[in-house]
Amino acid sequence: MGKTTSGAKACDFVLFGTKGDLARRKLLPSLYQLDKAELLDKDTKVIGVAKDEFTQEEFIELVTLALNTFVKEPLCEETLQRFLSRCHYIGTNFTDSAGYSAFHELLKPEERVMVSYFATPPAIFGDICRCLHEQDLIHPDSRVVLEKPIGSDLDSSRVINDQVSAYFKERQVYRIDHYLGKETVQNLIALRFANSLFASKWDNRTIDHVQITVAEEVGIEGRWGYFDKAGQMRDMIQNHLLQVLTLVAMDPPVNLDADSIRDEKVKVLKSLRPINSDNVYENTVRGQYSAGFLKGSPVPGYLEEEGANLQSHTETFVAIRVDIDNWRWAGVPFYLRSGKRMPFKSSEIVVYFKNPPHNLYRSSYRNLPPNKLTIRLQPHEGVEIQMMNKVPGLEQKQRLQTTKLDLSFSDTFKNERIADAYERLLLEAMLGNQALFVRRDEVEQAWTWVDGIIQSWEQSNEKPKPYPAGTWGPVASVALITKDGRSWDE
Amino acid sequence: MGKTTSGAKACDFVLFGTKGDLARRKLLPSLYQLDKAELLDKDTKVIGVAKDEFTQEEFIELVTLALNTFVKEPLCEETLQRFLSRCHYIGTNFTDSAGYSAFHELLKPEERVMVSYFATPPAIFGDICRCLHEQDLIHPDSRVVLEKPIGSDLDSSRVINDQVSAYFKERQVYRIDHYLGKETVQNLIALRFANSLFASKWDNRTIDHVQITVAEEVGIEGRWGYFDKAGQMRDMIQNHLLQVLTLVAMDPPVNLDADSIRDEKVKVLKSLRPINSDNVYENTVRGQYSAGFLKGSPVPGYLEEEGANLQSHTETFVAIRVDIDNWRWAGVPFYLRSGKRMPFKSSEIVVYFKNPPHNLYRSSYRNLPPNKLTIRLQPHEGVEIQMMNKVPGLEQKQRLQTTKLDLSFSDTFKNERIADAYERLLLEAMLGNQALFVRRDEVEQAWTWVDGIIQSWEQSNEKPKPYPAGTWGPVASVALITKDGRSWDE
Repeated sequence: MGKTTSGAKACDFVLFGTKGDLARRKLLPSLYQLDKAELLDKDTKVIGVAKDEFTQEEFIELVTLALNTFVKEPLCEETLQRFLSRCHYIGTNFTDSAGYSAFHELLKPEERVMVSYFATPPAIFGDICRCLHEQDLIHPDSRVVLEKPIGSDLDSSRVINDQVSAYFKERQVYRIDHYLGKETVQNLIALRFANSLFASKWDNRTIDHVQITVAEEVGIEGRWGYFDKAGQMRDMIQNHLLQVLTLVAMDPPVNLDADSIRDEKVKVLKSLRPINSDNVYENTVRGQYSAGFLKGSPVPGYLEEEGANLQSHTETFVAIRVDIDNWRWAGVPFYLRSGKRMPFKSSEIVVYFKNPPHNLYRSSYRNLPPNKLTIRLQPHEGVEIQMMNKVPGLEQKQRLQTTKLDLSFSDTFKNERIADAYERLLLEAMLGNQALFVRRDEVEQAWTWVDGIIQSWEQSNEKPKPYPAGTWGPVASVALITKDGRSWDE
Repeated sequence: MGKTTSGAKACDFVLFGTKGDLARRKLLPSLYQLDKAELLDKDTKVIGVAKDEFTQEEFIELVTLALNTFVKEPLCEETLQRFLSRCHYIGTNFTDSAGYSAFHELLKPEERVMVSYFATPPAIFGDICRCLHEQDLIHPDSRVVLEKPIGSDLDSSRVINDQVSAYFKERQVYRIDHYLGKETVQNLIALRFANSLFASKWDNRTIDHVQITVAEEVGIEGRWGYFDKAGQMRDMIQNHLLQVLTLVAMDPPVNLDADSIRDEKVKVLKSLRPINSDNVYENTVRGQYSAGFLKGSPVPGYLEEEGANLQSHTETFVAIRVDIDNWRWAGVPFYLRSGKRMPFKSSEIVVYFKNPPHNLYRSSYRNLPPNKLTIRLQPHEGVEIQMMNKVPGLEQKQRLQTTKLDLSFSDTFKNERIADAYERLLLEAMLGNQALFVRRDEVEQAWTWVDGIIQSWEQSNEKPKPYPAGTWGPVASVALITKDGRSWDE
């Protein structure tokens, strides 16, 4: 591993918010893994930035602790020493450019690519940009990586994007949606466009409908105040599920360049049929978990969590029927659902093919189960096709059975460690490839559509429907798909 | 197992040639297995017929020995005793009806279905029919099962079929091709018609070509004299490979009735483009194995086998490009190959799909490997789809790899013993279902096409091309497919 030339050139990776949860859990461990895989140039530096006054030693201690805590396997001592020797710390108030003068001692943005990662609240993205500018730290090759959420609606996302774009051109901006870094999500493009079995069947002539599920087992995890302002719609659907939907639904791009792919993705978002007060109850279900049981243990309801406001109408579960009004998908609904406190963690895309035009087995089977293609994102990444086969055996004349052709990534690519999504994305940002990052027009199209739904919900002032923790959401979610003569994948 | 109602009603199963190789190796063990699976009615009798004078005790001894030798697992004592109590013996000259009078003591063909299995040389099929007739043993419900070969060309097959049809109507005649009893071959129909993924893609718009391979590891096995008169074309292609081809290529039948399926099969045989002196060298390759090595051990050539005639031009290997001149398959060649002394035993159907209309990955892959569907008949029955997936990993940007989605019958249906083809076929004959047997017009169409090839070979008087035992046939076989820009499946 790592002997190939895929690594990035020497650069300065500046991590704003280096003491935060995301940095410690995901970003520092991912940088360590890239170093271990020999994908960081020997001269690449990692500069942590935070408010506190820290000595270099205290910072090294913080990084070491983060790696020891969050890297899953035992640390490689050689890699650790190499990685720590890259690490530097700058303590400054993010909003005061005076403190940024220290950057000049450590980096030369006019000579080396500087990748700034904003793992901070979006409210200060603009201030950081301004300070970098005032210290003349922004050059044509500089890049900025923005961690979500980018706004809580179209207007607020525009404010943030405007603040950043005052200093960085769109080609310098890398908006993270970590779902795009997942192996299986990247594999979607290969699956669709390198396999004629699917390439020529990916439309309303052959596909009946598509389901995208992101089920979380966890509840609020102590973030009640934060989550209650967002809700599942903003936190999961607006970004992750819509991003996955665009990759499933997009037309073939002209080529695999970042903007060719993103051009097609944004076309899908523009084709989403608007949901408003007229059709919101037909096409959406909101839920909020009540007390229940998870794997046998009692867990509190959303309104019983620490810090809860008993009047909250925030949804912890959403199910939506999405119609895509274009030539490819007319008449093929996409059903999205995402919730907290589901029975188990599971993310998957399921493509249901239409049944054969005629049922030769009608004397035994009134309806044949359809072929379906399942793309599992979690917990075990893989691809699976459900088919009908004859059951072997003598006494079972023409008995059919659904069976699965299975491709588990971890089984098939045994020697390959499946990289965390952030490893891929940090590497791509250092390489300067925007394909796996979200373009501004995508963010805005997604918000436009999502805002319509949220506004319709707010206008109705109806409470989300309760569902016991440890179940698959409110009964209305089942009704949403059942009234179309379909059912959620199990 | 066996508690269901799939078993046949009480009948008399009369086995002509009960002392022969086929009866001992396959038929008696298959009857035993049916009994074990409780698929034989308690009153069903098995009557062995042969020339020798045998006592009941001697016959029971012969059956027991056959079962002990050829049933793979240890015998079930309870089943064995039950089975032996069904067994009766009649010794008679096959061609003298006087000896058939003993049948009346054992069976009542006017009351119970009598299934006569002719495991004898086809030259005496007519005599047996005549004797049965003279003893008034043929009734409207009587059935006759004919073991191949049925003739060695169209004319001789007509003679045999005429002799039988003088006494039995076509609906009473069950022509065996044991390939039709294989689970995977039966599964072909389910695979094609119960799965929209294939049902709607099974034609020249989506399929590039099809390969059918039946490779034998064995050589002549002491049957030189017999085999030399037949050759691989008559012995394997005319029956097994063409039968498999018809099931792969046929149009959807009106329903799953025997004649609906056979109507479609015969249409395929009628559509085979004739091969004659004009195109025989373009479309066929004949081979004959010479001395070589099989799994490291030296083995003799065909002309060095015991009993060999050094002047023999008989082929032990055939490769053919078959064109099917109909709307579905125009432009889609079917490549057949079958040979003895191949590197290992393997029977498979491989369906190659056309590539996507455009290669998005052309900067990395000039040609993408196609999707292919493999249906393995031997050694491990199963279904497999080859697809392209992205290789997981960070340093391998957009590297693709062919990977397999696999459905092994023995893995998937763990609790099911995969029945031998003969078990299925004997049961179907007792049930009176002709779907898995070959109709007379199929036999004749197959011979018509095969005769054209054999005659062209004979006219040329060219020797078959030698190939060393333990290889995949003459180099010309590779050339046959390579000149079309394709290659044999590996």
